[in-house]
Amino acid sequence: MIGGLRLAEREIHALDMEQFDETAMRRAIERKRDGAPLEPQTWEAMMRSYVGGGIGDAQMGALLMAALWRGMTIDESAALTKAIVESGETVEFPAGMFVVDKHSSGGVSDIVSLVAVPLVAACGARVGKLSGRALGHTGGTIDKLETIAGLRTALSRDEFVAQVERVGCAIAAQSQHLVPADKRLYALRDRTGTVPCAGLIVASIVSKKVAGGAQAFVFDVKCGGAAFIHDSNEAELLARELVSVAGRFGRSARALVTDMNEPLGHAVGTGIEIVEARDFLRGEVRDARVRTLVLRIASEMLELAGIASAYDAAAAALGDGAAYERFIAMIEAQGGSRAALERMQLPSRTEAAVAPRSGYVAAIDATAFGNIARAWSEHEPMAGIVTAVRVGDRVERGAPLAHGYGAKASASALLPAFAIIDEKPEPRPLVYSRIS
Amino acid sequence: MIGGLRLAEREIHALDMEQFDETAMRRAIERKRDGAPLEPQTWEAMMRSYVGGGIGDAQMGALLMAALWRGMTIDESAALTKAIVESGETVEFPAGMFVVDKHSSGGVSDIVSLVAVPLVAACGARVGKLSGRALGHTGGTIDKLETIAGLRTALSRDEFVAQVERVGCAIAAQSQHLVPADKRLYALRDRTGTVPCAGLIVASIVSKKVAGGAQAFVFDVKCGGAAFIHDSNEAELLARELVSVAGRFGRSARALVTDMNEPLGHAVGTGIEIVEARDFLRGEVRDARVRTLVLRIASEMLELAGIASAYDAAAAALGDGAAYERFIAMIEAQGGSRAALERMQLPSRTEAAVAPRSGYVAAIDATAFGNIARAWSEHEPMAGIVTAVRVGDRVERGAPLAHGYGAKASASALLPAFAIIDEKPEPRPLVYSRIS
Repeated sequence: MIGGLRLAEREIHALDMEQFDETAMRRAIERKRDGAPLEPQTWEAMMRSYVGGGIGDAQMGALLMAALWRGMTIDESAALTKAIVESGETVEFPAGMFVVDKHSSGGVSDIVSLVAVPLVAACGARVGKLSGRALGHTGGTIDKLETIAGLRTALSRDEFVAQVERVGCAIAAQSQHLVPADKRLYALRDRTGTVPCAGLIVASIVSKKVAGGAQAFVFDVKCGGAAFIHDSNEAELLARELVSVAGRFGRSARALVTDMNEPLGHAVGTGIEIVEARDFLRGEVRDARVRTLVLRIASEMLELAGIASAYDAAAAALGDGAAYERFIAMIEAQGGSRAALERMQLPSRTEAAVAPRSGYVAAIDATAFGNIARAWSEHEPMAGIVTAVRVGDRVERGAPLAHGYGAKASASALLPAFAIIDEKPEPRPLVYSRIS
Repeated sequence: MIGGLRLAEREIHALDMEQFDETAMRRAIERKRDGAPLEPQTWEAMMRSYVGGGIGDAQMGALLMAALWRGMTIDESAALTKAIVESGETVEFPAGMFVVDKHSSGGVSDIVSLVAVPLVAACGARVGKLSGRALGHTGGTIDKLETIAGLRTALSRDEFVAQVERVGCAIAAQSQHLVPADKRLYALRDRTGTVPCAGLIVASIVSKKVAGGAQAFVFDVKCGGAAFIHDSNEAELLARELVSVAGRFGRSARALVTDMNEPLGHAVGTGIEIVEARDFLRGEVRDARVRTLVLRIASEMLELAGIASAYDAAAAALGDGAAYERFIAMIEAQGGSRAALERMQLPSRTEAAVAPRSGYVAAIDATAFGNIARAWSEHEPMAGIVTAVRVGDRVERGAPLAHGYGAKASASALLPAFAIIDEKPEPRPLVYSRIS
């Protein structure tokens, strides 16, 4: 038996060198199915063949399910990451220019990027962030930014690099030329129920960050009912793998596992979240929970960039308006304007969902809010939801729980997302763990 | 949470009724991935959509891997079987005509069908057998029969039914119009490493048998190193499922789990196995192991057909030449002739593999023999291997272990398939278990 097994492995390696065809793929699927990790060169040859049309979605779909079933080692994730990076172009910052980036695994009312990116730049570090669009019930920073009149997110690589150098920060949409293999793989994972596989998630996230050119990353791994990971131990494992695989590419990285059991901020939508970020940066409405997370993430980014007294510097740049001015500078560099940002406002039509009883807010269903806000704002970018309470708050019967904004807004759609109970619920931590 | 789950299930049912699209398929994959059995109507709607082009191989490949991972209930296998049967035409025998069939899960030197089908017919039962081609290292009865000059296996449904009625037996190739979904699904399973899933195997086998029109089946589930199932407990589970699912279609069925750790007979190839079957039926060379299995399977078939003293009847029909005459009648009905059969002979060129040492034969690698014989006989239908020993036999150094026949035959290719040791190995049973 041992003789036979060794022969099979030699055959696969030989095939890797030449062409990874359907027969090689079948053997790779069978080995993964039977619980064996695949060699790095197998992952790389497989992805080259997949991108080149040598093997198709049918075999890849089966392999993905086997990977979800059996799990992937760090070596496997790193190899897949490398193959995805090599499938397309990469951003290269000039030598000597240290750039940091952050990534959120997807949340509701997650305005951290909008706030932390200019904040970190205001403290003297450079931030080059390539960002994604809304996915499912979670918002997308690119969709949100595009509600600012005139603002472009489709920057060329040269424009992106030049803006980071000149302004200190940029948030651009990932171009079609970066990580094309990830786009194809993600679409397949979505259709085949293979999104929730840690190794595949890690490769998808880290490949995008590595291709984006920054030298250091902070990963915000969301955890809870409205995140794609519900369990904090699983989220911590994922966070460790993100940091570990980033390290394989010579990138310093840290990760925070943070709560996503209720919306992070108060606004849920697209343009409505720009308004919340703007007002937060201006110091007009400064939610404690958002502030805590923004400062935690910004100071991790600053530390990675070698900025001293990172937390104090970040808090100061929030307080003195420097972060807001850097936000304006970034918007202007991308074709928007201060005036366009400052005239943005919530739709005048509003409906309030009110507490049907007195008690304590035990839960706010952020997934439902994400889905509702997405539907309402589809043809009305400023429409959405603004919550009036947080989990743990005491409410009296008839008091507002949330306001819906826009033509489609309806209080009755919002009400089922709230659970009100008699006893004050145990407070949940905002940051579950930190990996460095 | 329970509310959400119930809603999701209602949505799937609603979609089943109309169209089973990519979204419905993704939900089905996710549920199977998470360990939930799918409802019979989900399997049926899914297969209708797959055959109709609504969903593609990528999603089906992922579902198959999830099914392999999580297993399938009898209800699921039966639903898939039904969907496969309904994807094509079926054979209908005239009312009142009771027809039996047998199936082997694939072996090396497995000449049981060639012998048992005419034997059972000679005892007064009708046998209508649709058979397959060689697959991997295992032989195919259709390929073997086609080495008889003039013999046709591509019978129309009417020809098949008429021959079973007139001659008492027929062995025909499965037409393209029967179980088209199985052909497509099997090709996909082969590419995606999802062949070894009991529920899928059961559906593939039983659907073909049900579509073939017989009212009763005997399943010969091979088990051992050269079978696709190596473990006798797994083979017994599969055997139970075959009998159980056949029962859902109103078919009586029995199953035997039999050994496939060495070639069943002595000849391995295509035409060379016809010669072995012919000589066995003529009583010239009657291997004890083949005789035991042929009589066990034939008597099970006869009992299902209600023939009294089944075993004695079968032994008598073997002894008095009635089975051989029925074999000739079947061959003639399908375009062959007694003369064509009787002039078949082994190639004159032969090489003998001889024992490199004295001892006991501990193993004969039937998988290797199947592959070698297939390669040798590709362009020379009578080429192949004839073993000279059985596992457990005492051999002296220099004595022949096997003869290779044909232009490509080489003793050195055969020798590695034999293991010779000092002590007599424990004998292995031929029949591990029987399910009825």
